[in-house]
Amino acid sequence: MEDIHYTCQWGTGERWGDAPSETGMSRLALSDADKAARDWFVSTTEALGCKVTVDAMGNIFAVRPGLRNDKPPTFVGSHLDTQPTGGRYDGILGVTAGVEMLRVLADNWTETEYPVGVVNWTNEEGARFPKSMISSGVWAGDIPVETAHSLREVHPGTATMADELKRIGYLGATPASYESLPMAAHFELHIEQGPLLEMSNKKIGVVTGVQAYKWFTINVKGRDTHTGTTDLKSRADALLTASKMILHSHRLATANNALASTGILNLKPGSTNTVPGSVTFSLDIRSPSDATVAKMKELILQDFPKIASGEDVLDSNLGCTASLPLKVEIIEDFNSPATKFRADCITSVRQSAHHILGPNSHNLIMEMTSGAGHDSVYASKRCPTSMIFVPCREGVSHNPREFCKEEDCALGTQVLLQSVVRFDRM
Amino acid sequence: MEDIHYTCQWGTGERWGDAPSETGMSRLALSDADKAARDWFVSTTEALGCKVTVDAMGNIFAVRPGLRNDKPPTFVGSHLDTQPTGGRYDGILGVTAGVEMLRVLADNWTETEYPVGVVNWTNEEGARFPKSMISSGVWAGDIPVETAHSLREVHPGTATMADELKRIGYLGATPASYESLPMAAHFELHIEQGPLLEMSNKKIGVVTGVQAYKWFTINVKGRDTHTGTTDLKSRADALLTASKMILHSHRLATANNALASTGILNLKPGSTNTVPGSVTFSLDIRSPSDATVAKMKELILQDFPKIASGEDVLDSNLGCTASLPLKVEIIEDFNSPATKFRADCITSVRQSAHHILGPNSHNLIMEMTSGAGHDSVYASKRCPTSMIFVPCREGVSHNPREFCKEEDCALGTQVLLQSVVRFDRM
Ligand SMILES: NC(=O)NCCC(=O)O
Ligand SMILES: NC(=O)NCCC(=O)O
Repeated sequence: MEDIHYTCQWGTGERWGDAPSETGMSRLALSDADKAARDWFVSTTEALGCKVTVDAMGNIFAVRPGLRNDKPPTFVGSHLDTQPTGGRYDGILGVTAGVEMLRVLADNWTETEYPVGVVNWTNEEGARFPKSMISSGVWAGDIPVETAHSLREVHPGTATMADELKRIGYLGATPASYESLPMAAHFELHIEQGPLLEMSNKKIGVVTGVQAYKWFTINVKGRDTHTGTTDLKSRADALLTASKMILHSHRLATANNALASTGILNLKPGSTNTVPGSVTFSLDIRSPSDATVAKMKELILQDFPKIASGEDVLDSNLGCTASLPLKVEIIEDFNSPATKFRADCITSVRQSAHHILGPNSHNLIMEMTSGAGHDSVYASKRCPTSMIFVPCREGVSHNPREFCKEEDCALGTQVLLQSVVRFDRM
Repeated sequence: MEDIHYTCQWGTGERWGDAPSETGMSRLALSDADKAARDWFVSTTEALGCKVTVDAMGNIFAVRPGLRNDKPPTFVGSHLDTQPTGGRYDGILGVTAGVEMLRVLADNWTETEYPVGVVNWTNEEGARFPKSMISSGVWAGDIPVETAHSLREVHPGTATMADELKRIGYLGATPASYESLPMAAHFELHIEQGPLLEMSNKKIGVVTGVQAYKWFTINVKGRDTHTGTTDLKSRADALLTASKMILHSHRLATANNALASTGILNLKPGSTNTVPGSVTFSLDIRSPSDATVAKMKELILQDFPKIASGEDVLDSNLGCTASLPLKVEIIEDFNSPATKFRADCITSVRQSAHHILGPNSHNLIMEMTSGAGHDSVYASKRCPTSMIFVPCREGVSHNPREFCKEEDCALGTQVLLQSVVRFDRM
């Protein structure tokens, strides 16, 4: 808990309570605040006897030697970057729990069979550079390093990842690849970020997989005109059209039992008395089923151009006056298929959880699928992987009020440590 | 035409054609570009024999003495500021036509009975500081000067009007008031900004009044949550709710034969995987009838809170999953009731137009109401006022492609000059 709150001095966010630690976080990837947290991670893990390697994506691998070092380390991994208005636990808990694991091993003179390590992945959130989990994606060989290096920040849209990695001194010489930095396994402790554990009074989620998601950018192109002199039928209103699309994406999500969300919307020119000629917005589509995500994509590709051209996808145009046709462009930015974690790692987590929670453990453990993406998704493509979830207050995350009880942070960390040790023995 | 294109070197906007003058304009009120255009206006009118006064709103009054100077001048007025992506004619035509009038009077050694003047009003567009016609509003005594001075720019939201008036050196010592700077009359030449003149092959619009409008700021407050872990019914999605409101405002406009437009929308926090907890948007409502604008306001005050709380204003919630309730705040920022211009000024414009257009004039003149607001609205509260419209290409304005033929600029300017001279004689 000390590490969590100490490191949250870098990128402290909005205050929601009176206690010193009752603020959110705003530590966008590769910002100055992120650099400070990284520097802490490097010096702390080195002080605990680790060898630290930074790769070409700024991923930081801290490795503690084992009795034998002829096999890859078993890793704990998560991320120190946050949402623009995020909380103190998403990602941060996972990394600081890894540091705590190193400390417990050191304090107890424990030697593992093989090396163990902790990795801090870069830009997991996808909040600043708009592909989530991009740096574990490069490590896994799924995303070309050039694509990642040239990815531009969402706002104000000037710096690329390579620019910012260089600027803060975290553009490492080691290739970002599972081949140069192999892992025996990857374990990740994370807050659930949803309400299921809390609602059912469980303490530990044994995560068996992650749902599928795709991110899109939608560009709507109409025509700037005067709001006072242009009658409704002579308009090509990009914001009205975008509003219809956002609404329709929710209708489709409801009908297909999927999720649809728009978190970013920018319009031009941005004047009270000018009908906006141009709108760009993000669309995030999710479902545990790849087929459902694919179907949602198909429906969007089919219906958005109809909405733009004025065809009646929304019943009777919802009583709006028919206007001039607009154009729409739909770009798929990011794709994360449904992930199933490996049975051996899941078993390691399940057994550790039962062992730690004691006789009543069957009432306190839940097997579950993650709604959010995590670096474990990409890790699982190249090594055995699983995750541990702990409850967070009201299931709220990506919000300054995000909160996880000390007791739950501790339980999760114990399960994490034991999962790693079990796997190492195995 | 030389003055128009020469002064458009300050704040040149987006290119749309190959000729040097085929660009739009981006000259926000009180910007450096606006200062340069103002400096030109001051030096040019002084060189034409005018006395120049700057008032506390930065309005610039250039006055040419008459044979007798014991009565207030007859003014021509308009504005040199533009939309962020505006054109070369909106406002600029009116001011440069006024300068041309001064030039014609000087070149021809013409003496008017009473003084005549040209006024450049500050921030007519309301694009940078979000109240249109604010400085003629202060002059007319309708808007307190303190309110105007403390009005903050739309983007990035730091500077006030007073700050920027001071910064560019146009915070004049003379009170902004019809009492310190009275007018005998106010004539304004403007592009129509709509399609009616062009569609009906008319050359001159005799403007008899201006439709009513109100501007609102709508704040929608929900809750930031994770897009992947928060099911649809556990969300309080401020952007989905704003989309419904924007759509609904268009349904209401369609049903009531009014106009509804949203030109600005900002959301927080702005991350692909965070459901936005907060959205602010502008709403511009117009109709020639005050009663219709009042009714639209009433319907919005009644329906938007229902949409926020999840009541079914949009039929069956449009097939969207019902979610958590949100809050909405509706602020009226600006109100311009329907305006009727004065018969004597309208007559002056009508007679001048017939005189200039010759035998076929009855086919070339149209009496009309303005869809857009103009400084003439506020001027008309304190002196006889009317306006002259000329056609613009496809009725498009607030767009870089805004265009008015040289021939039409010239005809409008002739009608303007003659209207002023007729009124002066009268
Ligand atoms: N855990 C988390 O918030 N990850 C960000 C990637 C996502 O959008 O699911
Ligand atoms: N003429 C013009 O564009 N005026 C701006 C005020 C309005 O929104 O009507």
